[in-house]
Order: sequence, then C-alpha cells, then structure tokens
Amino acid sequence: MKIKELGEQGLVERIRRRLTAKDDRILVGIGDDCAAIKPPPKGLLIMTTDSFVAGVHFDTSYFTYRQIGIKALAASLSDIASMGGAPTGGLLSLFLPSEIRVEDVDEIITGILEVGNRFHMRLVGGNTVRSPILILSMTILGEVEKSKLTLRSGAKVGDLLCVTGDLGRSQAGLIALRKDVQLNTPTLEAVTRSHLEPVPRIPEARVLVESVRVHSMIDLSDGLSIDLVHLSRESGVGAKIEREKIPIADETRAVANAVEKDPLDFALYGGEDFELLLTLSKVEVEKGRRAMEEETGTRLTVIGEILPKKEGIQLVDRQGEIRLMRIESGGFRHF
Amino acid sequence: MKIKELGEQGLVERIRRRLTAKDDRILVGIGDDCAAIKPPPKGLLIMTTDSFVAGVHFDTSYFTYRQIGIKALAASLSDIASMGGAPTGGLLSLFLPSEIRVEDVDEIITGILEVGNRFHMRLVGGNTVRSPILILSMTILGEVEKSKLTLRSGAKVGDLLCVTGDLGRSQAGLIALRKDVQLNTPTLEAVTRSHLEPVPRIPEARVLVESVRVHSMIDLSDGLSIDLVHLSRESGVGAKIEREKIPIADETRAVANAVEKDPLDFALYGGEDFELLLTLSKVEVEKGRRAMEEETGTRLTVIGEILPKKEGIQLVDRQGEIRLMRIESGGFRHF
Repeated sequence: MKIKELGEQGLVERIRRRLTAKDDRILVGIGDDCAAIKPPPKGLLIMTTDSFVAGVHFDTSYFTYRQIGIKALAASLSDIASMGGAPTGGLLSLFLPSEIRVEDVDEIITGILEVGNRFHMRLVGGNTVRSPILILSMTILGEVEKSKLTLRSGAKVGDLLCVTGDLGRSQAGLIALRKDVQLNTPTLEAVTRSHLEPVPRIPEARVLVESVRVHSMIDLSDGLSIDLVHLSRESGVGAKIEREKIPIADETRAVANAVEKDPLDFALYGGEDFELLLTLSKVEVEKGRRAMEEETGTRLTVIGEILPKKEGIQLVDRQGEIRLMRIESGGFRHF
Repeated sequence: MKIKELGEQGLVERIRRRLTAKDDRILVGIGDDCAAIKPPPKGLLIMTTDSFVAGVHFDTSYFTYRQIGIKALAASLSDIASMGGAPTGGLLSLFLPSEIRVEDVDEIITGILEVGNRFHMRLVGGNTVRSPILILSMTILGEVEKSKLTLRSGAKVGDLLCVTGDLGRSQAGLIALRKDVQLNTPTLEAVTRSHLEPVPRIPEARVLVESVRVHSMIDLSDGLSIDLVHLSRESGVGAKIEREKIPIADETRAVANAVEKDPLDFALYGGEDFELLLTLSKVEVEKGRRAMEEETGTRLTVIGEILPKKEGIQLVDRQGEIRLMRIESGGFRHF
C-alpha cells in the first residue's frame, strides 16, 4: 500500500498502535497536540534536533528503511550522550514522498523503536508531511544532573584528549558500500555496520560523568578534525593530537589499504563515527578509562593534549613532525 | 551572498549573534550539542513539533521570508496553547537550498524572533542541512501545571463547544492571495494577514485555564470539521454545531461573496485559523468568556454542544435541518 492511500491520520494511528511500552515519565504520548512529560525530579533538561535527508545523509540504494530509522535516532542520541545525559522522549518529523510504501515507513519506525527501547527513550510524538524527498527530523529531550553537564567549552590547558572506541570506521563502511572493495565478509560487515547502524555512546557517557570530572565533551559527527576545532574554539584553547595514538580498527585499515587511502584521513575527516571526544585532567584519565572499560567494554584512548590557544591545533606524526591541521580541506560540509 | 558561500558554521554563528536576549531559564543555547534548560519548578513539560514545506505549506511567491518564519513558529506555538501551556524554548531545523540568499535566511530568523519574543519563547538550538527545497521544522518545549493540562480527550456530554476569535479568515486570505479578488485594501489586508502572519492564542489559553475548568481543547489547524472529529474521537463523544453561530468576520464574508463561495466552508474546511476549539461545562462558559474578553480582548463564542457518541457529528442549519458532517470531503489532507 502507498502512503497516499493510508493518509496522515491513518499513518499516525498505525504508529501509535505500536507504541505499547509503558513509561511512568510519559503522561501523554502520540495523539494530542503536544506530548506531556514529567520533568526530571532533579537536574536539567537537554534538547537536540537533527535531520537526515535522502541523498545527503543516506542513500536508499544501500540503507534499508530500518537502518535509516536506526541511524537517524542514533545520531540524535549521540548529542544527548555528549552532554553527559540520558534521553527521555523523542519526536519524529517524517517527510514522506507520496509514493513511499506504508511497509517502508513501518520499517523506519521499527529501527527507531529498536534504538529507542535499547536506550530507554520513548517516541512521544511527531508529525508527518508530504515532501518530494524522504527526510527524517528527530528531536530528543533528555536530562542530566547539573553537576554532570559536559559542554564543549570546558577544556583546560593540560587536559588529556581522549576518544571512545575507534575512529574512521564509518567512513571505511561508506567506501565499502559505494565501491567494489575486495575484502573478506567479516571485515566488510564490521565497517558497513558502523556506517549503517551506529550505536550512540549513552552508557559510556554516563559511566564517565559518574566516575570522573569530564571537563569537556563533543560527539564525533563531522570528523575528528572539525569536531576538535569546535571543542577548541568553544573552550578558547589549542590542542595537539598524536597521529600514532588515534585508535583505528584493523578492519578500517584493511579497507583503506584496499582503496589506497590513508586510514588516518578516515578518522580525521570521515565523520559519523559517533564516538565521544572528551578531555580529562591527567590524574583522572586512568580512573575514567578503567570505569568505562569495566562497565561497558568500550575502550578509552588518550590521543593528545589540550594546549594554550596560541599553539593552534597540531597533528604530530611518528617522527615528531608537527603540522597544523588543514581543517578547511576536509570533514563534512553541509553546504 | 548565497548560503553555500557562508557554510553551515558561518550561518550558525550568524544566528547565534542575534540571540542576545537574556533568559534565566536557558543555561545553554545555540552552539553546543544540546541546549540545556532549567525544568519548570512545578508542572509538566509539553513538547510539539511541526514542519513547513515550500510548495505544500507556503509559497514564496506571496510569503516574505519573514512571514515564513512567523507562520512556522505561530503554528507550532498554537499546539502549546491548545494544551493550556506556555512555551519555553524552541529548536529550528532549517532545510536550505544551496542557492538561497543569506539575507533571506536572516529574514526567516527575524520572523521567528519576533514571534518568540512576543510569547516569551527563546530559540535555543537547531540545525541546518542542505536540501533541494526550503523546509522549516520547529520543535517547541513548554510547560503547564498538571491541573491545567487540557487534552483533546476530556470533552463531556453536555459541554458547550466554544471557539476563540473568528473562523475561515485564513482561507479567505489564501484565496485573496491566489486570485485577483476585487475588494478594498483594508479587507484584503485583514484576511491576508491572518493567512501570512497568524497569531497563536497563548494568552487566551492561559486566561481560560486559569479562570475556568477547560474540559478539552484543540487548535484549529486543519479546519473545524477535521479538528472537531479529532476532539470527538479522542473524547469518545459526538457533537452538534449550529451553523449560524460560527463566528465569521465581515472581511471573510466579503471575500467569500466575491468568489461566490459559502464562507461557512472556509470555516469548516479551510484550516490554519489557529483559533482554539474547546469545551466547557454550561455553568462556566460565561465566566470563561468574560475573563478572556477582559484580559485579551478576544471573543469566545459558543457554537454548539457535546452529544453522546451515537449522535455522530452534526451540523444544524438555520431551519433546524441536521446533516452529518461530510468530513472526508474537505479539510486539509497531508497526502
């Protein structure tokens, strides 16, 4: 069935019937003019919105509709993680071409519910409109204790720069999806899954803010180069990254080799890894690393250090040679 | 200058510089991964999202960019009003064609800030993405005391159906904008302004929930016919509207006459009036009407009554003839 046969009201009812999970925090979900939610008993509200446009952020030739839902929500939840918070409710704006099938929209919702349930976020509302192209726009409401709120602006000179997981894998996946890369199946699956079904670092962020004092944090959506510039600019500092310390998975290296690229470029400019970039004082790094690894199994890696602003942003290679990062030439630009 | 020359980061900085209004409720505004907001000391959070697509919801041939911003925010705030609440913060997702001029985006923001300042809502975040067509997606966070939350589902048999202001004016404006209607300038200005620059009924809703017990409420975005069906269905009731009681402005009648249409059809099927449709017990109507009129100058008109569900939804004309509303044939359908 085409969506234009079902109509907006029919679609809303169809989605509403699937939202059966009970949640004491939600007083009114889908079906009224607004959702109504109990405020957190203590702490702050945090809110973020993000949009995913067919042909810009995803390509239906290699994304399933379920994966489109997964990725849209994961990317939005990643912003909640980067503030040290946990999500509560989400709103979904669906821009649908008249010709899209109802079953495809069902699959988008399946992906969203999968990720939402995993991270205790309820879909509480949204809207649907006709559009020439498929777009998902997600807004997430979350909460965080005031003392644990982590901003981009808190980095201090002398802090160590850390990242969760490994970098460049999503870019490797994108290349594997677009080109005919000759590699074994497990390698291809590992990298393509990172691109198609990223996982927001919500539990990792919570363990970190609960175990140590995270001075600053940002999620890696645009690539390490650009996101480090954001963090440095907001904090009024410079930074140094040591090239050899950037964690890159073997699968990512294999794809880079196969297409004769430098895997470091994937990490620096690739984007969409949705790992966390954060700064900790030197004395707290080991405590944070151990807590996160024990509770979530995710690695925390020191990749550099915060410098005074006048030092700029430096990339130091194996031989100790320093170059200032060429941030304008890479990373994802939206226009 | 074209937006593609400025880039996303440049645009965000440009918008951020205009958000100078101080607000104790907002801890973090634009510029981080999330906004951070103090929760209301008492009461509930309410949240809504709405989207405006060029060619579907507005037409740049007769909307200025400022008016696109005004209408997008007004329509979203109208949903906050219909819950009895007041807005706090808003997020704006801007989908921009590469060729749009920076000055046009400035005008969109001007419209949003105008309406936001008037109703004490701060723009606290958002995102911008490249898109083949111009789209605005707005999410509003608001608050309302639990005892004052008004849902679609609270209508009781015997309640009187009331509306704020007058109906059909936005549809009259749309026709005046699209056709060459020969009428005097004040008439045309009155109706076109209602279509281009609607005003959400935030103060009216607040006066009502503070002075009487509003049993149910919805905003008239899709037209009286469809929105009454929504309210009746959620409340499990029927309803009767008396045709002659529906408030229609002289300007609206003049446009209807000029194009040989029934102005009642504008009210029933036109949509986008953003007036409030609500139900009150008979004994409270006069109190609510007087409070609203004294404090806001806006009229409250009784247009009918809530009936048992089995009576259906009835439209009664001057001669007392009853017809069941033909809801499928009119109103705005999104697909």
